[in-house]
Amino acid sequence: MPGTPPTRFVYLGPEGTFAEQALRTVPAAERGSRTPARSVGEALEAVRAGDADAALVPLENSIGGAVGVTLDELAEGEPLVITREVILPVEFVLAARTGTPLPSIGSIAAHPQASTQCRGWLRAHLPDAVVVDVLSNGAAAAGAANGEYDAAICAPIGAARHRLAVLADKIADHPDAVTRFALLSRPGPPPPPTGDDVTSLAVYIAHDRVGALLSVLMELAVRGVNLTRIESRPTGEALGRYVFFLDCTGHVADVRLGEALQGLHRVCAGVRFLGSYPRHRWGGLTGERPVAAPAGLSDTDYTDAAAWLTRLRVGEQS
Amino acid sequence: MPGTPPTRFVYLGPEGTFAEQALRTVPAAERGSRTPARSVGEALEAVRAGDADAALVPLENSIGGAVGVTLDELAEGEPLVITREVILPVEFVLAARTGTPLPSIGSIAAHPQASTQCRGWLRAHLPDAVVVDVLSNGAAAAGAANGEYDAAICAPIGAARHRLAVLADKIADHPDAVTRFALLSRPGPPPPPTGDDVTSLAVYIAHDRVGALLSVLMELAVRGVNLTRIESRPTGEALGRYVFFLDCTGHVADVRLGEALQGLHRVCAGVRFLGSYPRHRWGGLTGERPVAAPAGLSDTDYTDAAAWLTRLRVGEQS
Amino acid sequence: MPGTPPTRFVYLGPEGTFAEQALRTVPAAERGSRTPARSVGEALEAVRAGDADAALVPLENSIGGAVGVTLDELAEGEPLVITREVILPVEFVLAARTGTPLPSIGSIAAHPQASTQCRGWLRAHLPDAVVVDVLSNGAAAAGAANGEYDAAICAPIGAARHRLAVLADKIADHPDAVTRFALLSRPGPPPPPTGDDVTSLAVYIAHDRVGALLSVLMELAVRGVNLTRIESRPTGEALGRYVFFLDCTGHVADVRLGEALQGLHRVCAGVRFLGSYPRHRWGGLTGERPVAAPAGLSDTDYTDAAAWLTRLRVGEQS
Amino acid sequence: MPGTPPTRFVYLGPEGTFAEQALRTVPAAERGSRTPARSVGEALEAVRAGDADAALVPLENSIGGAVGVTLDELAEGEPLVITREVILPVEFVLAARTGTPLPSIGSIAAHPQASTQCRGWLRAHLPDAVVVDVLSNGAAAAGAANGEYDAAICAPIGAARHRLAVLADKIADHPDAVTRFALLSRPGPPPPPTGDDVTSLAVYIAHDRVGALLSVLMELAVRGVNLTRIESRPTGEALGRYVFFLDCTGHVADVRLGEALQGLHRVCAGVRFLGSYPRHRWGGLTGERPVAAPAGLSDTDYTDAAAWLTRLRVGEQS
Repeated sequence: MPGTPPTRFVYLGPEGTFAEQALRTVPAAERGSRTPARSVGEALEAVRAGDADAALVPLENSIGGAVGVTLDELAEGEPLVITREVILPVEFVLAARTGTPLPSIGSIAAHPQASTQCRGWLRAHLPDAVVVDVLSNGAAAAGAANGEYDAAICAPIGAARHRLAVLADKIADHPDAVTRFALLSRPGPPPPPTGDDVTSLAVYIAHDRVGALLSVLMELAVRGVNLTRIESRPTGEALGRYVFFLDCTGHVADVRLGEALQGLHRVCAGVRFLGSYPRHRWGGLTGERPVAAPAGLSDTDYTDAAAWLTRLRVGEQS
Repeated sequence: MPGTPPTRFVYLGPEGTFAEQALRTVPAAERGSRTPARSVGEALEAVRAGDADAALVPLENSIGGAVGVTLDELAEGEPLVITREVILPVEFVLAARTGTPLPSIGSIAAHPQASTQCRGWLRAHLPDAVVVDVLSNGAAAAGAANGEYDAAICAPIGAARHRLAVLADKIADHPDAVTRFALLSRPGPPPPPTGDDVTSLAVYIAHDRVGALLSVLMELAVRGVNLTRIESRPTGEALGRYVFFLDCTGHVADVRLGEALQGLHRVCAGVRFLGSYPRHRWGGLTGERPVAAPAGLSDTDYTDAAAWLTRLRVGEQS
Repeated sequence: MPGTPPTRFVYLGPEGTFAEQALRTVPAAERGSRTPARSVGEALEAVRAGDADAALVPLENSIGGAVGVTLDELAEGEPLVITREVILPVEFVLAARTGTPLPSIGSIAAHPQASTQCRGWLRAHLPDAVVVDVLSNGAAAAGAANGEYDAAICAPIGAARHRLAVLADKIADHPDAVTRFALLSRPGPPPPPTGDDVTSLAVYIAHDRVGALLSVLMELAVRGVNLTRIESRPTGEALGRYVFFLDCTGHVADVRLGEALQGLHRVCAGVRFLGSYPRHRWGGLTGERPVAAPAGLSDTDYTDAAAWLTRLRVGEQS
Repeated sequence: MPGTPPTRFVYLGPEGTFAEQALRTVPAAERGSRTPARSVGEALEAVRAGDADAALVPLENSIGGAVGVTLDELAEGEPLVITREVILPVEFVLAARTGTPLPSIGSIAAHPQASTQCRGWLRAHLPDAVVVDVLSNGAAAAGAANGEYDAAICAPIGAARHRLAVLADKIADHPDAVTRFALLSRPGPPPPPTGDDVTSLAVYIAHDRVGALLSVLMELAVRGVNLTRIESRPTGEALGRYVFFLDCTGHVADVRLGEALQGLHRVCAGVRFLGSYPRHRWGGLTGERPVAAPAGLSDTDYTDAAAWLTRLRVGEQS
């Protein structure tokens, strides 16, 4: 029911991974139910079928990962919209049962992506330990807790959930690595504008991609709408069609973004609105901070221009 | 008084020239007073001072001429707006007193621009006649009428006014040559849209002219607003500033042109609105015919996009 | 040694996965040594260190996957170049030991991405079977071969390597799903142009991303260079910097692409050349076929324009 | 004969006007013959027919004038090229026979454009004098010299030629008004680059003028070629075709302008090269001074990019 806050949450499982950690930063989820799903597809299906109110899934991973699946799910099937983004630093820890000294560690359980990201640290501190691949960060923590392995590379939440001691934290080679998660719901009124919002779109383009993409960017540029992300993906459904995922600054309720959206609707083969939601402000990359509007494209410029046009139409000159 | 139809007209004189002929195609002018002015500047000053309601002056001449003066007058000083355009074929005639046989003509009075435009005809038909420069087409006709010269190159209206016989018509080398005149008034509500209108603008641009002009064209292109004329002129008032005179398709009351105008107002150093008025449909160049809106930029596309945005803003997906 | 064909190949392991299958389509690899690596990073390090001549790793996965890791590796560290692309349909099979009837299957080993992609088939044909997550398609096949599980979802090569019978093939829900692999080497002369080549670039952009991206696309568009892929990623190294991965039509040796590359070098914060290589022609999406050059941008147009300029410079007019 | 300096000059007459004054700033013309022509068309025909080596005609007049004629002559017929531009301040003087006191002046001969430009001065200093229209500034001076009128508004050269005393100089209302003249010859090798040159072009565009003009500007903008003038004119010869006159910074021998010219040749319906020639440096508008190349578009940037491409093509990475 539109307007009812979500209470039943689903997330990309298993328990004890970054997705659960991200979901717990959402106050309503902290109070509601939180169910892990085996895959992004299963999580979104639960929302589409009405079995859950919202799903938290990874959207973008600064090291790599499941982005493609989520994007494809968003571009096809019943529409879903993003109502919130959560950006989480990828902070891997080395965790072991209490009382395990670092030098004694001979085997380490880790998801292959996790051990890859901590290669430098492992080489420097535990060059002789054997790294054993497991299926998830949560499974690694579980394996260390039950004594199958001496230690685990996992998320802080995985260590906490399995009552492991953290022997070393922030062991990833890229200290700035983050994962961006999206909270997805069935379509409904977007959250109100905050003055620092993101709007996500899936834009379909046919044939001549440079020319068509130039048109898309011109629609944004002339309204001073900035891009924070662009990604192209082929679409299987129609030959030669491409879909571009765009994250733009602004909210669907804004005049300028509204004007740009109408322009995209006119010139593109298709546009799917994926939600307007507050930008997640975190202590990380400056690049994520709002960029000042280019000259002539501030909100004041918009108001002035609209007032000028109103005067012109009744025959007054400024 | 706004809304009152103009009754006192001034035009670029002297009497018996193309400007008078153009003015007489305006029904209100046919009923009102028509006063010749010595120069474009004098004509416009009469309107600015309230001594006349409207001035008819040349704006564009497909062979050359006084365009620059009119443009400069429009770009500076008290604002004036174009309420009507009149496009007149430049149809020169060879006129003489009744009973003058063509072979007997030894001297021809003509404005230098007129004789230049009829060079081919003169060479073919009167190679031995002496052409004498006079100050205007009207003065040429007057000189032939009073016997000072054997004949005159002049406008049909000049021959008629001085009761001269037309010995040959359409003697200009360029049969498609036209002059475009503008009827100028003090600012007031523009004439209502007709579905085939022109909007004239003076757009000020600073410094980097290619980049700035690209921005201007992008504002027009993304709204499907076409250009029928562009002309740059330096401005004396500020160093390095340029003014561009643009004629665009559409009316200030149109959604798309309104959006484009606001965009120009935001990105340009200055914009002066010079009027929205019906395109003069005449039997000439196809290029002046309205061009179909590019794909995605028809009025239906605009309506559809606006409806889509309205749905998005309340949380519905198409 | 430049010019020496590669003989020592490394690929993203383990054995029996799509990467090995892709590598075996490369004739030189079929004759040379083929060593699996634990991760994309390890594979590329082997090439950078000189321990291998070329590495085959996934670049783009139409369903999702390790793309990000490969891109980040290409954008940072010692330069590597793509010398070949291999596009492989993702054809999952259900494989079991010879003599296993389909209805008897109670447990299926599968990598989570694989079982996700075959969800529809599993629901229709084996709704009651238990799917057990394993770490790779190769591990799934191995598990079915040693009797740990009744069957495996794996690549055809995995079934063959473990002497499993294929009970069903092409069981993926998206029949068009493909993975695109890249063969990477240390920098050297690119393969000769074939007339249907791809050039990959990493382009660094600072600050105002719409405007900067517009500039990038204009450099390509004015030379008729088409884009077949674009993906943005944040860069950790410098605040607010973005890197765009572009796949363009054409070869670094082409006049038009050379001109475009110089333009990008001039206007971007940085450009890393990632290789020119033949497009992999496969029976799939029409969108991958070469697009005809836009009007005025054919090779003949280039030759004509160059000849015209040569004439102008010596004072001749066409 | 190409390479032979011109000796026979023709200019837009009559004698004693600004065109003669402009021609006398050309050293070769000071030594050669200088013949007045009755019109721009006649002057250019003399060059085309080989009766003169070069013609000096007005190209652009900051107040208005014969620009159109010159442009049309350049766009059509046998090609001619500009080899030099001369920018002359329009400095009107009030001249009379020696011994004429200012207050005694009752009649003033002036070309209508001249008296229009001096309206303010006349109103302030000689409000009661009668202004009589004559056909040229030269005719005005002649009329004052022979006693037909008390004084003349004319060019300084007209006063000097008729031995008139200058009663007041710089009497024009716009002190910055200039006329830009072009010296035109039959096609031949252009003057060598000076580092501050102008290239003039006539560019033909069909149909959709905003889109086509955007393409033209993109060709210039991506090479950092700036525009100092743009003017559109309809062409009579083909329906719906437009010609744009462009003045660009740079020389046909420059790499960047050469690249841009080739681009225009490819995308336009037609391009006519109208010459590369040194910019006339005068003490006037700052806007005429060379503009620094935008970021990434300096000559060094061009050299660097070319060197980078050369390295890429042989397999080296910077």
